[in-house]
Amino acid sequence: MPGVTTSARSRPTMDEVARLAGVSLKTASRVFNGEPHVTERTAAKVHAAADELGFRPNVIARELRRGARSTSVGLLIADVANPFYARVARGVERRLRREGLQLVTASTDEDADLERQLTVEMLERRVCGLLLTTCLTDHAHLEAERRHGVPVAFLDRPPHGITADTVALDNAGGAALATRHLLAQGHRRIGLVGDLSRLPTHRERVAGFEAAMHEAGIADWQRYMRADSHDSESAGRAAADLLALPEPPTALFTTNNRITVGTLRALRDTAQKPALVGFDDFELADLLGVTVVSHSPEQMGESGAARLLDHLHGTPGAPRDERLPVRLVPRGSGERPPPP
Amino acid sequence: MPGVTTSARSRPTMDEVARLAGVSLKTASRVFNGEPHVTERTAAKVHAAADELGFRPNVIARELRRGARSTSVGLLIADVANPFYARVARGVERRLRREGLQLVTASTDEDADLERQLTVEMLERRVCGLLLTTCLTDHAHLEAERRHGVPVAFLDRPPHGITADTVALDNAGGAALATRHLLAQGHRRIGLVGDLSRLPTHRERVAGFEAAMHEAGIADWQRYMRADSHDSESAGRAAADLLALPEPPTALFTTNNRITVGTLRALRDTAQKPALVGFDDFELADLLGVTVVSHSPEQMGESGAARLLDHLHGTPGAPRDERLPVRLVPRGSGERPPPP
Repeated sequence: MPGVTTSARSRPTMDEVARLAGVSLKTASRVFNGEPHVTERTAAKVHAAADELGFRPNVIARELRRGARSTSVGLLIADVANPFYARVARGVERRLRREGLQLVTASTDEDADLERQLTVEMLERRVCGLLLTTCLTDHAHLEAERRHGVPVAFLDRPPHGITADTVALDNAGGAALATRHLLAQGHRRIGLVGDLSRLPTHRERVAGFEAAMHEAGIADWQRYMRADSHDSESAGRAAADLLALPEPPTALFTTNNRITVGTLRALRDTAQKPALVGFDDFELADLLGVTVVSHSPEQMGESGAARLLDHLHGTPGAPRDERLPVRLVPRGSGERPPPP
Repeated sequence: MPGVTTSARSRPTMDEVARLAGVSLKTASRVFNGEPHVTERTAAKVHAAADELGFRPNVIARELRRGARSTSVGLLIADVANPFYARVARGVERRLRREGLQLVTASTDEDADLERQLTVEMLERRVCGLLLTTCLTDHAHLEAERRHGVPVAFLDRPPHGITADTVALDNAGGAALATRHLLAQGHRRIGLVGDLSRLPTHRERVAGFEAAMHEAGIADWQRYMRADSHDSESAGRAAADLLALPEPPTALFTTNNRITVGTLRALRDTAQKPALVGFDDFELADLLGVTVVSHSPEQMGESGAARLLDHLHGTPGAPRDERLPVRLVPRGSGERPPPP
């Protein structure tokens, strides 16, 4: 049996941090617990000492000692009734349960003001970590919270203005996969029905679509692009508009589950159905024969929760932008050739 | 303008309760806050005085005074990834938000031990109210919590062993509606693919099915009944079994969304499809032409939350068993006649 090495430095204690900062243990503890009656200057000294020693408080142990009041993780999603988010929530919940943590969820309805308000409420109620599928375009307001030891991780959509752990999909890769699949069937006029232009997921998926169209030597790809649908009704109208053009697209790429569902409804009574590939799998896509770019929302939730847990256990590592893989599932709709 | 009546007695105060019980206001307050250091005997005296005077503490105001730590309502559901429960959660969330309350959710996976454990965890973390879609067959363990002022309401499935507010569907009425619809198309051999036998929703839906079959003079209705499916896979197998009988049913009643989906998958390659009516609407049922018994899961969530809020505002009223209406939505599958 090999000898046990002694080179691994033991983890620094809060006591060592307090000594290096020149404050009492009680004061250092107050800083990490985000308690009042600590000056900005003292807090800065303690944080600097912690950074120097590589100290991270074990938040879970601390909260459990306190009486298990703050062992809840907050999750902000656009809408729990959207199956994509429900499955993300399920993944988060599954991972947290293994640590005895609870999940507090709230839906933002893609409303920036509501998202800001819910974030404040969750932090006031002392969640021990926060997972966001954000619709905001700036996240600098979260910097202060992170300094006080509340870890924040982003799901599905990366942050702006701060560096933080993100777990998202390979959006550009998935969109390119869908588009190349349609090109391979012989389609040249391919329409895109897309989400709100301001969302990073949308922009990444458009970028993947554009890349694949360029590869195929198609320069006027924007001609058939319709963005800013965010529910199935508006997506259905956008798809119908495209198909009513004098020279309509022979294939459609729909960039999320809501949009695919709305487009399918719009196509219901169309005799000459265009080929269709949707981003996101959905229940009954198999029965309806819909070709999709599939991935695991549960995995996104589990990975996001795991990143928060790394922070809570005091072993965060550098912030990562994790991209989950996607794959194409052919089921018929994406394999229709263009009309002769 | 009519005179203001003076007959409405003003609401009793905690001070009056304390005086009647012969304890200090501080002690009475401890009892209602569920704090330690109060003997059983004192607590009983205070509760008796409160009952006599009709006193109810205003929990929301109390918790907000305390610092907004316990303004979370707990919701236990079977599985947040099941669209039915996700929509119930959405309704609960919507109603709570209007009061500035948060929602804490957890999934029980229909596991009785897990449900008991999650209930204890939620109460330990001091939720101010609890909404349960329970899979337990006894709820006497919740009596103590309710005595301490944590209101509990039941969604979808009524409790056993205690009397409490319940918001559920008109299960028997909906099942009878579905069955009579199939009988009206001329079907006599109608199969039922059902949920876990122990669930009250299942038993009520079977009772409605039985009543409608009896009305039609069909005595051997149990011949085509298959219970105890709880996911789409097992439901698909049960449906396939029924259709493989020497004299198979010509129509099927599937008793929830999971079961309907599994049955549709099992029927995919069946040339001679039986008529089908499913309990619960689901996304894309319109595109697939599936006739369903429809209702509003969001309404169930909102009504359940409203009942808790009545308790939290100190105006509970007598426990109610509210039944939400259902309606039949014909879309093709339920209107197929029996084969000639």
